[in-house]
Amino acid sequence: MKKTLVAMTVATLFSTPVMAQSWLLTDAESGMDKGNWTISSQQLKLQGQPFSIEQKVLHGGKQEGSKVITLRSENGLTIALSPSRGMDLLHVNGHGVRMGWDSPVDEVVNPAYINLESRNGLGWLDGFNEMMVRCGFEWTGHPVSKDGVLYTLHGKAGNTPASRVEIVVDDQAPHEIRIRGLLKEHTFKKANFSTWTELRYIPGSDSFTIHDELTNHSDYPQDYQIIYHSNFGTPILEKEARFIAPVKSVSPFNDYAKQGLKSWNTYDAPTKGFDEMVFNLTPLADAQGKTVAAVINSKGDKGAAIEFDTHQLPLLTLWKNTDTLKQGYVTGIEPGTNYAYPVTIEKEQGRVKQLQPGQSQAFTLTYTLLKDAQAVQKVEQRVKTLQGDNAPQLEEKPLAVE
Amino acid sequence: MKKTLVAMTVATLFSTPVMAQSWLLTDAESGMDKGNWTISSQQLKLQGQPFSIEQKVLHGGKQEGSKVITLRSENGLTIALSPSRGMDLLHVNGHGVRMGWDSPVDEVVNPAYINLESRNGLGWLDGFNEMMVRCGFEWTGHPVSKDGVLYTLHGKAGNTPASRVEIVVDDQAPHEIRIRGLLKEHTFKKANFSTWTELRYIPGSDSFTIHDELTNHSDYPQDYQIIYHSNFGTPILEKEARFIAPVKSVSPFNDYAKQGLKSWNTYDAPTKGFDEMVFNLTPLADAQGKTVAAVINSKGDKGAAIEFDTHQLPLLTLWKNTDTLKQGYVTGIEPGTNYAYPVTIEKEQGRVKQLQPGQSQAFTLTYTLLKDAQAVQKVEQRVKTLQGDNAPQLEEKPLAVE
Amino acid sequence: MKKTLVAMTVATLFSTPVMAQSWLLTDAESGMDKGNWTISSQQLKLQGQPFSIEQKVLHGGKQEGSKVITLRSENGLTIALSPSRGMDLLHVNGHGVRMGWDSPVDEVVNPAYINLESRNGLGWLDGFNEMMVRCGFEWTGHPVSKDGVLYTLHGKAGNTPASRVEIVVDDQAPHEIRIRGLLKEHTFKKANFSTWTELRYIPGSDSFTIHDELTNHSDYPQDYQIIYHSNFGTPILEKEARFIAPVKSVSPFNDYAKQGLKSWNTYDAPTKGFDEMVFNLTPLADAQGKTVAAVINSKGDKGAAIEFDTHQLPLLTLWKNTDTLKQGYVTGIEPGTNYAYPVTIEKEQGRVKQLQPGQSQAFTLTYTLLKDAQAVQKVEQRVKTLQGDNAPQLEEKPLAVE
Repeated sequence: MKKTLVAMTVATLFSTPVMAQSWLLTDAESGMDKGNWTISSQQLKLQGQPFSIEQKVLHGGKQEGSKVITLRSENGLTIALSPSRGMDLLHVNGHGVRMGWDSPVDEVVNPAYINLESRNGLGWLDGFNEMMVRCGFEWTGHPVSKDGVLYTLHGKAGNTPASRVEIVVDDQAPHEIRIRGLLKEHTFKKANFSTWTELRYIPGSDSFTIHDELTNHSDYPQDYQIIYHSNFGTPILEKEARFIAPVKSVSPFNDYAKQGLKSWNTYDAPTKGFDEMVFNLTPLADAQGKTVAAVINSKGDKGAAIEFDTHQLPLLTLWKNTDTLKQGYVTGIEPGTNYAYPVTIEKEQGRVKQLQPGQSQAFTLTYTLLKDAQAVQKVEQRVKTLQGDNAPQLEEKPLAVE
Repeated sequence: MKKTLVAMTVATLFSTPVMAQSWLLTDAESGMDKGNWTISSQQLKLQGQPFSIEQKVLHGGKQEGSKVITLRSENGLTIALSPSRGMDLLHVNGHGVRMGWDSPVDEVVNPAYINLESRNGLGWLDGFNEMMVRCGFEWTGHPVSKDGVLYTLHGKAGNTPASRVEIVVDDQAPHEIRIRGLLKEHTFKKANFSTWTELRYIPGSDSFTIHDELTNHSDYPQDYQIIYHSNFGTPILEKEARFIAPVKSVSPFNDYAKQGLKSWNTYDAPTKGFDEMVFNLTPLADAQGKTVAAVINSKGDKGAAIEFDTHQLPLLTLWKNTDTLKQGYVTGIEPGTNYAYPVTIEKEQGRVKQLQPGQSQAFTLTYTLLKDAQAVQKVEQRVKTLQGDNAPQLEEKPLAVE
Repeated sequence: MKKTLVAMTVATLFSTPVMAQSWLLTDAESGMDKGNWTISSQQLKLQGQPFSIEQKVLHGGKQEGSKVITLRSENGLTIALSPSRGMDLLHVNGHGVRMGWDSPVDEVVNPAYINLESRNGLGWLDGFNEMMVRCGFEWTGHPVSKDGVLYTLHGKAGNTPASRVEIVVDDQAPHEIRIRGLLKEHTFKKANFSTWTELRYIPGSDSFTIHDELTNHSDYPQDYQIIYHSNFGTPILEKEARFIAPVKSVSPFNDYAKQGLKSWNTYDAPTKGFDEMVFNLTPLADAQGKTVAAVINSKGDKGAAIEFDTHQLPLLTLWKNTDTLKQGYVTGIEPGTNYAYPVTIEKEQGRVKQLQPGQSQAFTLTYTLLKDAQAVQKVEQRVKTLQGDNAPQLEEKPLAVE
């Protein structure tokens, strides 16, 4: 652990020409990692909302060597993410509300201990406990074998340790914080994707933004898929919690989900034997393509909302895993380029996107912790406006059979 | 490496309300590991049999980062186990006798470097060199593919790094030592097993006890299997060494073992081309279900015995791998819930056990290093008593064909 | 990191009875690794060509924990190799010439993050960026499944962390340096190979020698295969660069390579869509079995040459991967016991070699950085002499169809 802080002026690095301090926590190019590390607004002598940022290297079990960065804002949110696991968000807390869930997997598993191919491509389940995990970018969706190649559940990004991690704090109030991490999916002859992930947060706020930029560095067009698998359990998810979003249509993912189609947007209490129901949604958006989806508790005074851009992420999957608490009582709100069918089906049905050589694609999602009835109502109103007069169209037939 | 010892009173943690000191070496929950660490009876100012306990982090080759705990008792045993490898016992030495063997695998392989699925499910062989390895708990036995899922050789427990490791030393003489380690087999939707392993040893003694407690934390019944794969080579194993145990019946594991059925309980010298013969045994036990199995050298003055409970572990596999020394001249005495057939066969033949939601199952085995003729004779006498007048029944036909 | 240097006299360890100093960097037997470490000729108070040797532990991304040893000779070469990756050579630089290439894989990937079985046995491509990678020793070549076992691309040696690493520096001028690393391919019942790799370098020189010794420690004969996959990109490889070697015959690896047969020994500029062409060569050698192969740039003033022994490595593969720069514009000169067909084909066609119990086989290759026209001409002349009057025989038909 180095105790000196390397502060740099990074004015030229970003589009907005603000002055900022930055810290390099990890850099594969020079082979360095700061290990355990911390800063605070107090230490930096910044006025305004107090905050601290800490990187910690974990030990024990299969999390040996995993790193977690925790951003703490006294009056706002505490956000934990893991550079070892694709910069995925572990959990977010604030105002007594938790965005996240309780998975049976209770460690931050180092991908070195995960075999994505195990259980016929379900190895991803050995590490799944995040509030938000990037499912991509070479492929996403349920596993499938094609020509002997096993396309494992939800791709590799979520089990890819970040090659470069940096923290940027704006000099000017309100001292926006950016936690940036670089994910590489580089395989000779197969893929040359880099994704700069960024979490943006203003201390004291109830929202944060994920801004990712995926680039195809190869000289050939490359298919890509991404699902932002965002997961919420108690205290938001509960009996009669509701999912809200402006949608054009809803269809069951498979035959099992058909029987839940009528009540697709309300939740049951933890239910033994429920397993999971998945619904494919086509979101409605405003003129700029912006939309929002949220899960809110039964009283309507707690929730989690995700704003996203349908030009970037045109599809939305709703995952209702309202089995028992111990099984992982959780719902997934999953904006994406794709549904969760295997890549073979997504390709066949024309939903897989492509990047040309050198081309980049940005993905921007704003997550808001809805701490009270007022915050919930604001989102409800926005959904209502976007939905307009047309009720969602319920399609009986699944788009595909796996 | 922290140099301060955190000593706590753990009187309430255990069934026997003794006062004890304890040290937490590893704790995934708080993300800590002590790394290189040591204590000794001298340092603790304890009277009686002197002992020391050391944790060491290993480097080099595929053992990079593996941890070994060595418990040394001057007048008793030296016991080495690896928290990185499922708390498995590496080797035990005392009085010039070694319990353990020489595998071609001569490193304590970090599971991060093992792919259990390699060689069609035989990846486990890349790390196998233990005196005792837990084969379980989701499944055990030979590998098999079913519905595309590869059930790899002997399950995952032996390649699971312990999530919590603690050392407990009784305040009162004879200062019993417990080395406890928590193994998690947690996979979303698939398994939620925790196993608290415990090694109990009284300094100066020639015996130690393994006491494991497996709990199904899921809300669904869960199949489990366990084989305590306990392995002994020279100097115990040699030409005309003998296996002794009270058994009702013996059957060859497969056709190859048929030809060795008549001499099932005596050993050959290292024999090129022998490979392995396996026999399925049904042990006889006393009224409490207790029994014993042992391997003893030709002169009958050295051996290793295992006492176990047939209510917990009703079956016994004898593995005779008396090939050449360099191939790994070794015999396995393997009390278990199951034989070593693939889980599909074990299930079909009704031997796979199940834990209900929240239910636990304990497994208790006492290993004794038989240091002289007297110790050997004591076990022989016990076997004789339990066997009674009935000779073991030799069945010609294997229970199953793989 | 230990700061004391452990210097030993190793006069008896090597065939040439010179006095030398040595340093043990890694030793699995005692479980140690020096971590970050460095020495220099200045520090050792050695006269003659100045040099330094450094071991560095890398961090970030999938190279977390990977080690690199860099040998720097001011007036000669800078050679980087990775103990974590089979002692493979990463890159060699001198006189403004680089031996090596730019792979899309730009980290020194720790094998803990590689699953060789992924992509139907192509997981090796996740780490491939070396100047020289050992493809062996249990098997090599393209992946193939046989009896359910996946023989993954190019075997395991290149993804095997060295179990013992030592540096030896001769006391006498010119102070030859040896970097030795022990690779173990030890799997119970399957393989018991040890390979002592050695890089020999005299400070100030433009050449270095790889001297490996493979031993079969098992009591059974064991098949082995090895290809020294040696890879060169810019500035040597370019439009109208040439491959030179004395060869008896040339045949295309597959149908695609047929169309490139006429121009088999000249290179194209980076060419989109070219992918790769592979040619199987049978080298001609002198009376001692020695031969040489080289790639030289268009002007004939830069190049890389490899001398090898056809008694050890009778075959030569030429890999022309002159696709675009970003795809990895590179050519492979690959002396080996085998061609790159799957082990099943190599076995069928009688090219797989075997080691008897206890038997060893040495492989010696000398790499030379050709820094100017004179150096190039010297190799050209040697090739001409060895080729003699007979033109290479071009065979139209691939030896096998995969």
